[in-house]
Amino acid sequence: MSYYSPSIEKLIEAFEKLPSIGHKTATRLAFHMLNASNEETEEFINAITNAKKNLKYCSICYNISDTDPCLICSNPKRDMTQICVVEDVKDIIAMERMHEFKGVYHVLHGSISPMNGIGPDDIKIKELLDRLKNEEVNVKELILATNPRVEGEATAMYISKIVKPLGIKVTRIAHGIPVGGDLEYTDEVTLMKALEGRREM
Amino acid sequence: MSYYSPSIEKLIEAFEKLPSIGHKTATRLAFHMLNASNEETEEFINAITNAKKNLKYCSICYNISDTDPCLICSNPKRDMTQICVVEDVKDIIAMERMHEFKGVYHVLHGSISPMNGIGPDDIKIKELLDRLKNEEVNVKELILATNPRVEGEATAMYISKIVKPLGIKVTRIAHGIPVGGDLEYTDEVTLMKALEGRREM
Repeated sequence: MSYYSPSIEKLIEAFEKLPSIGHKTATRLAFHMLNASNEETEEFINAITNAKKNLKYCSICYNISDTDPCLICSNPKRDMTQICVVEDVKDIIAMERMHEFKGVYHVLHGSISPMNGIGPDDIKIKELLDRLKNEEVNVKELILATNPRVEGEATAMYISKIVKPLGIKVTRIAHGIPVGGDLEYTDEVTLMKALEGRREM
Repeated sequence: MSYYSPSIEKLIEAFEKLPSIGHKTATRLAFHMLNASNEETEEFINAITNAKKNLKYCSICYNISDTDPCLICSNPKRDMTQICVVEDVKDIIAMERMHEFKGVYHVLHGSISPMNGIGPDDIKIKELLDRLKNEEVNVKELILATNPRVEGEATAMYISKIVKPLGIKVTRIAHGIPVGGDLEYTDEVTLMKALEGRREM
């Protein structure tokens, strides 16, 4: 049995459906919303509807953007011959925060995962190949920045296999001990990768 | 500098304004919303707008409700002569979960707090008095269930002082060691209250 009025109950349920929001937080958010002014509520709702309405995928790199092509693909200062392949839109943000990479991106929107029934055709690999075969841009390097997990490794391996025959240089981001990390607490696999990837000083 | 498109940025900011939501959670919620189907989004927005539209204060007890009077005040099985005074709507839920209290409520919507500039006139004390003076319902007991903090105690004291002359029995919920609690880890003030409130077995 519920002790709240139906409308409150529904509002709490709505918040509870969001990821990482439990019943207590949902209740807090619901009451916050009820106590908020009408303008604040309207602003919140507008942010959602505008985002859903305005945002689309960039037809070149499949980043989410207000414009098509996205701000990165339409920036003439970026090096179109260097493409960094990532799994998710959020990974672009992580890369951009670095202020180092001057190339462009390609978002796969997932990784190959036979366990979850996701094959190469379910992510944007075909679109990547079309892009590489396009003769207008002569792509020189493909940097595979998928996550260093089983699925990300499998995806990187798969892409590397089909892209190498095109004569394009394919690289993989390095695995190793994070800066500020501790050898003592590093797992064996990472340590092995760090040793394998050692470089002369 | 922001790395997201303006619409995403605004959506993240909107979620960030909610209580207990930091930047990382706001980003996760924003992307969840972007990936949600249009029906899911609509349902979420409707829950908010309906709640804001339908909910009002019960004109008797000031609970938040879809109906006026609220479900508790309009329930003929509840004992109208016993009123439990609470600070917040959420406190009613805590009481109802107990399945024990058969009386009705009065929500103060706050507590007296001179530090924050909240005096007796800023919370629903006048409305409580009007209710007690109403001769249609002959109130027999007023249970003060404000929170056992400085403000809640001050509020209870204040109400007790002005209600007692009306010849109504005024009681305060007991303080003591929580069930399942541990004497060793109980603070001195609670322990003192528990000792003061001891009863013959």
